[in-house]
Amino acid sequence: MTETELIEKLTRNIPRKKGPLQIGIGDDCSVIRAGNKDILISCDSLVQNIHFKKSWGSWNIWGAKAAAAALSDIAAMGGKPCYAWINLALPAHFKTTDIQKFYKGLLGVFKKFDVTLAGGNITRAPEDFAATTTVWGEVKKGKAMLRSQAKPGDAVYVGGALGKRGQWQPQIKLGEWLVSKGCKAAIDVSDGLLKDLEHMAQASLVKIVIEADKVPHVGKLKEALTYGEDYILAFTMATSVGQARGQGPKIFKIGKVVKGKPGVQVVNSKGQLLSFQKKGFEHKVG
Amino acid sequence: MTETELIEKLTRNIPRKKGPLQIGIGDDCSVIRAGNKDILISCDSLVQNIHFKKSWGSWNIWGAKAAAAALSDIAAMGGKPCYAWINLALPAHFKTTDIQKFYKGLLGVFKKFDVTLAGGNITRAPEDFAATTTVWGEVKKGKAMLRSQAKPGDAVYVGGALGKRGQWQPQIKLGEWLVSKGCKAAIDVSDGLLKDLEHMAQASLVKIVIEADKVPHVGKLKEALTYGEDYILAFTMATSVGQARGQGPKIFKIGKVVKGKPGVQVVNSKGQLLSFQKKGFEHKVG
Repeated sequence: MTETELIEKLTRNIPRKKGPLQIGIGDDCSVIRAGNKDILISCDSLVQNIHFKKSWGSWNIWGAKAAAAALSDIAAMGGKPCYAWINLALPAHFKTTDIQKFYKGLLGVFKKFDVTLAGGNITRAPEDFAATTTVWGEVKKGKAMLRSQAKPGDAVYVGGALGKRGQWQPQIKLGEWLVSKGCKAAIDVSDGLLKDLEHMAQASLVKIVIEADKVPHVGKLKEALTYGEDYILAFTMATSVGQARGQGPKIFKIGKVVKGKPGVQVVNSKGQLLSFQKKGFEHKVG
Repeated sequence: MTETELIEKLTRNIPRKKGPLQIGIGDDCSVIRAGNKDILISCDSLVQNIHFKKSWGSWNIWGAKAAAAALSDIAAMGGKPCYAWINLALPAHFKTTDIQKFYKGLLGVFKKFDVTLAGGNITRAPEDFAATTTVWGEVKKGKAMLRSQAKPGDAVYVGGALGKRGQWQPQIKLGEWLVSKGCKAAIDVSDGLLKDLEHMAQASLVKIVIEADKVPHVGKLKEALTYGEDYILAFTMATSVGQARGQGPKIFKIGKVVKGKPGVQVVNSKGQLLSFQKKGFEHKVG
């Protein structure tokens, strides 16, 4: 069973909307109405020997990654991140200097985006380091971009080249710009472009057609389409808006939203269907 | 190094108050101002083989415990819990039926307190199950009870008998009642009564004197004073308020707040100082 299927099974009877809760389980963030703004909350875990191995790099990097992954969820909804909480589980042999490095990486990213660490805690772990980051962002009332708002006729864009693994730059400014332009549907590429667009297609009940040659990428195309953790935004909007962006951030048109059986298709420049076996990263659980 | 010392070291330069953030790192919850109310956020982790062993009970119980621990932090500030998020890290061999049991326990407690599960995620873990619960509560603007507000002259109370391990009932109603009576200082007993009162004494810069014979408890007194995870509230207020409670919840006066070197003393009925080696549960980390 995949993570998505398991969560669906476990949470079937829980309301997705209730009172001030505008969006519950199922999007990048929850959305809670508070006066004239909506508060975005997201929680993200980073587990040693699952998401990374110690030998891959310094603890600074994993701190930066934990922060970037959490902030990217806020970017995907078009919000401004404000506060964060970090819960660490540390094995007994963990060095204080390594925790300090992790915090340095984490706080470096938070500082860049003016996010204040507002709490959290530290507990022991039996074997492996784990970090769960909770983040609070804000967006104008009713303006959060959602997975479920892709409309037939819209074009599909990405906010940068895919496949640049290890360069985690949450696209906060792009998200805010998109909201200012009236963009309604976005997601961050965390599981892999095709997998994440699949989430969007299913949530919006639309077909998304990607033209492979138009996808900006580094390295092999297949990997760029299917590997996750890019933290680039993928979004849909009318072509006219995308083209009239003038001095706005650099964005790349890669496909279109059409009516049809919900899902993602990849075509070549002749319109021929391409097939990709591995549609991105998803934990098998349960 | 203890958890408290480590967090202090790691977060020394982070503001505890900034803009709408009224209370940051260092209390049971963070407090964020939003119009005429304050939003309380707390994150709590439960790690297999650290906080519990599988052989101790069913997964229902650990789900209930994860929920109770999180809600107890909201109770300690006098808030009403509203939303929660759960992040699970599951080892490969974890059974779907066990996850369902965990969710049943968790959601049972949430339902009792009208808390809506608003999100979270599931990832794999290399070895041990871990759950991080984030909870959102609300309290009237400026009314949250804090660790730092114990005043000399106040009496010290607890909301029930200590040492009833395994009966996790977050004292949400008691917390709300205390706020309605103007109580300013509370904490939940999660690390052990003496340890938690020590946190309060240090944060309030007061001495807290506990009369051992007055502490309601089950089992051995020493264990009741030092073992954690009771999720009973400890709080301070003027004796007159505590005594005039009429039909209010049952509370027990166990000591007093006085001027002096910040810390906790335990005395017998003759006023003689008692000594307790183990002042409660605190992870050694780093």
